[in-house]
Amino acid sequence: MKFKNRVDDLVKNLKAEDLDAVILGNSATIRYFTGLRFNTAAFSMLFVSKVGDVVFLVPTLDYKRVKQTCWIKDIISFPEDNPNYLEPLRGILQDKIVKRIGVEFSTITMDKEILIKEITNAKLVNVENKMLELRAVKDKDEIEIIKASAKIAEMAMNEAMSSLKEGIKEYEISAIAQSVMMKKGAETLSFEPFVMIGENSWLPQRFSTSKELKLGEMGIFDMGCVYEGYCSDITRTFSLGGLTDEQKHIFDIAYKAQQKAIKAVKPGVTAEDIDEVARSFISENGYGKYFPHITGHGVGLSVHEAPIIDVGDKTVLKPNMVITIEPGIYIEGMGAARVEDMVLVTDDGYELLTNAPRELERRLI
Amino acid sequence: MKFKNRVDDLVKNLKAEDLDAVILGNSATIRYFTGLRFNTAAFSMLFVSKVGDVVFLVPTLDYKRVKQTCWIKDIISFPEDNPNYLEPLRGILQDKIVKRIGVEFSTITMDKEILIKEITNAKLVNVENKMLELRAVKDKDEIEIIKASAKIAEMAMNEAMSSLKEGIKEYEISAIAQSVMMKKGAETLSFEPFVMIGENSWLPQRFSTSKELKLGEMGIFDMGCVYEGYCSDITRTFSLGGLTDEQKHIFDIAYKAQQKAIKAVKPGVTAEDIDEVARSFISENGYGKYFPHITGHGVGLSVHEAPIIDVGDKTVLKPNMVITIEPGIYIEGMGAARVEDMVLVTDDGYELLTNAPRELERRLI
Repeated sequence: MKFKNRVDDLVKNLKAEDLDAVILGNSATIRYFTGLRFNTAAFSMLFVSKVGDVVFLVPTLDYKRVKQTCWIKDIISFPEDNPNYLEPLRGILQDKIVKRIGVEFSTITMDKEILIKEITNAKLVNVENKMLELRAVKDKDEIEIIKASAKIAEMAMNEAMSSLKEGIKEYEISAIAQSVMMKKGAETLSFEPFVMIGENSWLPQRFSTSKELKLGEMGIFDMGCVYEGYCSDITRTFSLGGLTDEQKHIFDIAYKAQQKAIKAVKPGVTAEDIDEVARSFISENGYGKYFPHITGHGVGLSVHEAPIIDVGDKTVLKPNMVITIEPGIYIEGMGAARVEDMVLVTDDGYELLTNAPRELERRLI
Repeated sequence: MKFKNRVDDLVKNLKAEDLDAVILGNSATIRYFTGLRFNTAAFSMLFVSKVGDVVFLVPTLDYKRVKQTCWIKDIISFPEDNPNYLEPLRGILQDKIVKRIGVEFSTITMDKEILIKEITNAKLVNVENKMLELRAVKDKDEIEIIKASAKIAEMAMNEAMSSLKEGIKEYEISAIAQSVMMKKGAETLSFEPFVMIGENSWLPQRFSTSKELKLGEMGIFDMGCVYEGYCSDITRTFSLGGLTDEQKHIFDIAYKAQQKAIKAVKPGVTAEDIDEVARSFISENGYGKYFPHITGHGVGLSVHEAPIIDVGDKTVLKPNMVITIEPGIYIEGMGAARVEDMVLVTDDGYELLTNAPRELERRLI
């Protein structure tokens, strides 16, 4: 069974890393190993030992459901307002010699760290990158779900882009897309979507406001949904026309950089190789200092996961990784441009998962 | 100026608690002191010392905007993929004798804790409850915004409830409400909204699925939005009719418990007093063991904040606190009922902030 097999793989990794156990709390990691969906505000913890003990700690309100539907047999529940909810793990840990426990450092908050340290003297080791590594290469089921998630985002983007008109507000554009995604059965949004028009685009603002779209302005819309646990992420740049040649030019450069980087995607190249393709093209065209972020990132149960397509990430791309490619250019007083697509690494190259139209001018006025 | 005054109050509190400084990372707390909105995925940190130094660390992508719009003059930016982004604080801390620094333990993750400990040997003290205490009593502006947020949620609930029909899916009901809230200018949702019908309601499931609404079933819809930073939170129980007397009875008990608890709200009573009103009424009617959660919670920049209306919270209610009241009953094989409203504590009682119709049967068939 898929989820149990993943835990079996994890157990092998624990041995290789000389860990006695892991206590996992990241909701994406937990879904990867358990298959269970929770409300995004809920918190649960998964304990796995190097001898294959698996204990799932879930909020009382989720207990019945988890018991009925999860492959894991050892389910313990805790009231969400109880500060001692890790106490049941004490007994499990007491019987064993436990010296090193893996946790995800960017998930475990100081209050939870204290709880863990109350039940064990083991050294806490960061297994975050290991978990991301296990999740980076997707299986067939995951790829099908990611494709479905990408299609929903694409439909939403198309609907939003076809609704553009003078005076429409940033948040109204975003609302149109959100409505499509939720009606198509998305569980939630993969992040707070944002439309940034004109001066908001070059700040860049990264959230939608009541600013209205005008002729001669460039806008960026970045969004995606979560479908059956898996994220999508897509960005388009738009205008109603009336742009200067220089505005059109920065769009062309950002878009060409993206297309070049996409075409470079294949097994064997590194994440930073792909970044270099986009970054050097933008630099050669004189806009290097206007590209202030990463070229892309892995996407799966988290919207940002390994590998990171940026300087310094030497991850070698493998078949069935899914990444985004999204170089951008942001120039004060002029505009900003970014086109983002999701790309599946195939055996001999890549497959584009998002195909919504990419043209800059959405309506001829 | 409002935000600066809040920091001045904070500084007084630092002295009283014998803290040399705080390093705050909770986005709600940061908005409270800075007035700044960020994309929900962005991370920033606010440093305040007991002598009133204020330094705001923000992601590079947000720097220009924050510099233009924030009252704080000392803004430092960091690239989001840089592990050393707290380094600039080292210089600030070096000049001073800093023995105790307050941080919010449920916000600071282990990776950030390590960064803080790299720049200071000071003892880290949990100031979470102090920050929640400062935020619990709202000012006039906050109350106006919360009322607006509640009105948007109310409109969304009304639209969703008037769209009920046989065969409508849980996520479709949720999508209708979400669409209304986003079109009305909500920044985002205050949490992942959930519709739970029939067997999903008594689990309780806490997320929306493709389950369809049928006659004879009870459903619960819990949702809210974030408007200008402030959350709303409202729940209604619904059916299309065809219910048994016992189903109607558990609704009546849950609803009456809620109404009794609301009427008990006034300055001077404690949070647990209010909980007791709802809990004892439900127990007296024989459903005590079917009410597995808190009676309510404060609501503001966070959807769950102080006070918690539950056994053990001895917070004395004060004018201008805003809380929810939402006792519920969940019975396997029968149904579930919960009505949740937002309540403002006034000088001599309460004001109801959400007034969407509360009747159980939404359409006579």
